[in-house]
Amino acid sequence: MNQIPFDKWHDHMTTAPETTMGINYVVLAGGGGGARLVDGLAQIVPPDDLTIIGNTGDDFVHMGLHISPDMDTLLYTLAGVTNQETGWGRAGETWHALDAVRALGGPDWFNLGDIDLGTHLTRTHLLAQGMTLTAVTAQFCAKLGVQPCLLPMADSTVATLIETPDGMLPFQEWFVKERWQPEVVRVHLPDTARTTRQAATAVEKADVVIIAPSNPFLSIDPILNAYPLQPIIADNCPVVIAVSPIIGGDAVKGPTAKMLRDWNMAVSPATVAAYYDELLTGFIYDIRDAGAVPARDDLMTVTTDTWMRNRADRVRLARDVVAFATQQLEMS
Amino acid sequence: MNQIPFDKWHDHMTTAPETTMGINYVVLAGGGGGARLVDGLAQIVPPDDLTIIGNTGDDFVHMGLHISPDMDTLLYTLAGVTNQETGWGRAGETWHALDAVRALGGPDWFNLGDIDLGTHLTRTHLLAQGMTLTAVTAQFCAKLGVQPCLLPMADSTVATLIETPDGMLPFQEWFVKERWQPEVVRVHLPDTARTTRQAATAVEKADVVIIAPSNPFLSIDPILNAYPLQPIIADNCPVVIAVSPIIGGDAVKGPTAKMLRDWNMAVSPATVAAYYDELLTGFIYDIRDAGAVPARDDLMTVTTDTWMRNRADRVRLARDVVAFATQQLEMS
Repeated sequence: MNQIPFDKWHDHMTTAPETTMGINYVVLAGGGGGARLVDGLAQIVPPDDLTIIGNTGDDFVHMGLHISPDMDTLLYTLAGVTNQETGWGRAGETWHALDAVRALGGPDWFNLGDIDLGTHLTRTHLLAQGMTLTAVTAQFCAKLGVQPCLLPMADSTVATLIETPDGMLPFQEWFVKERWQPEVVRVHLPDTARTTRQAATAVEKADVVIIAPSNPFLSIDPILNAYPLQPIIADNCPVVIAVSPIIGGDAVKGPTAKMLRDWNMAVSPATVAAYYDELLTGFIYDIRDAGAVPARDDLMTVTTDTWMRNRADRVRLARDVVAFATQQLEMS
Repeated sequence: MNQIPFDKWHDHMTTAPETTMGINYVVLAGGGGGARLVDGLAQIVPPDDLTIIGNTGDDFVHMGLHISPDMDTLLYTLAGVTNQETGWGRAGETWHALDAVRALGGPDWFNLGDIDLGTHLTRTHLLAQGMTLTAVTAQFCAKLGVQPCLLPMADSTVATLIETPDGMLPFQEWFVKERWQPEVVRVHLPDTARTTRQAATAVEKADVVIIAPSNPFLSIDPILNAYPLQPIIADNCPVVIAVSPIIGGDAVKGPTAKMLRDWNMAVSPATVAAYYDELLTGFIYDIRDAGAVPARDDLMTVTTDTWMRNRADRVRLARDVVAFATQQLEMS
């Protein structure tokens, strides 16, 4: 039995080392819960020890602009310029351009704020100049004062497609335009997805890989599908910890729970842990679901309060993740 | 002598018919003085009788967006949404996107306001959907309540290039980025420029073609170069009137006077009239330059106050142009 009771574990953790120095963390993250955990981790892990690999499977070209929704949410969150109410987009955003698009009969289903547009315009320009998405992201991080290393999972286009009963939809059309309501028959990830040298190197050097509480099928699978990230993680990383995106038998936000229900799978952290399967060495899930995940000899589990309602929650969960990872590293 | 003294002509014109009904006007126009005269004409010519063919030679793709600066100025002016102080862009404009571009290290040399961006985004989207620039412009006019017919000179890309002593520059890089300071060795217009069916039909049906007080080399030549606009005008149109962009031996704004000086040509309406040469049946130039244009048997000239400082000036000049055209039509 590797499941540690919450109380005992927390008692143990109060004696855990305060520093994370020297441990290389790589986080695989989508935009929502992923970005919130990344924000917490960035508060406690030295920037040189923290790399975030973001999902670019839902990138798309819209009205001529290259838009990377998850990368932007991660960037804005790390830069501290996110709209805290919505969790995406920029604080203090205005909507004059989109209002004008609407008035001229253009497509207004994807929210493009004026400040946010500056990101898409600049990214589109720099990509057209021949820069990689990795280099563009590095420039944005430098300009916005983001210190941890933020990497896209790929520099090439690796679009996730959503197969619905009525046919195939580009990701954002399903997710935003159709408000993720059409049933997902299957998530199609390109066979040709390749990661970058930078991302591959980061996971090769990683002591700990953290799979953020993002949608496993839509945010994490696209990253793992960017060859050879998954085999490197499986072969090289001593500690791989996933944080459950399911809390109290539901998703905090977004389509994870609906997808599981549509697929007749239990909306439970157990389903998520089973899905990641042998890739994981550790699994953190919510105290509200305590006991839901069957312990395995090769999977250490721990429960804690994983609901990130505010900034303090993010740091608290990040501390729990780091403590768990440190403990696993010591045991490995 | 076909030159009519200003006083006599104005006395005559007070008896001119108030209505312009039934006369088809086509205006060839760039963005600056061209748009101001178009604004005046739109106040007095019934919309069904007024077609404007705008220059698209300075269109360009910038940060992924298809931008049509002259078409936008014409559209905004006709829609009454222009920034009256600058003469271009939208009234009440904000600059959040461009500020963000600058902060991220993107190119900020071309002014892109937030409301204005809505136009470029929608145009880029609709063109990518397969619409022609003509159809996009028609949609914009309908949405903004513009009644006269606004047409681009071409649907295909017909980029004007500026040859400078240091090499060839795309138009906007010379005009905006370099603030039209590098000497123009030559203006390069594409041999392959073709106009649209709609623009060709408009000039075929035109009773009067008005060449607006725009830069002859940069705004009007590109339109005339869109085959077969010039031969249709030369062969078919009974009345072709140009309005001088030179006032009091200088340009009101923009590079016209500098270009003439660089080319050792007189900064005079006479130079402009000679440049358009036999295409013209009539020429209107400023009272400040009275006598500057030698009369020819085949060119009627008239002087008036052509300086459009405000909206009333625009209507007054438009009335003079229409009266002159009507007089020429009666004589033709």
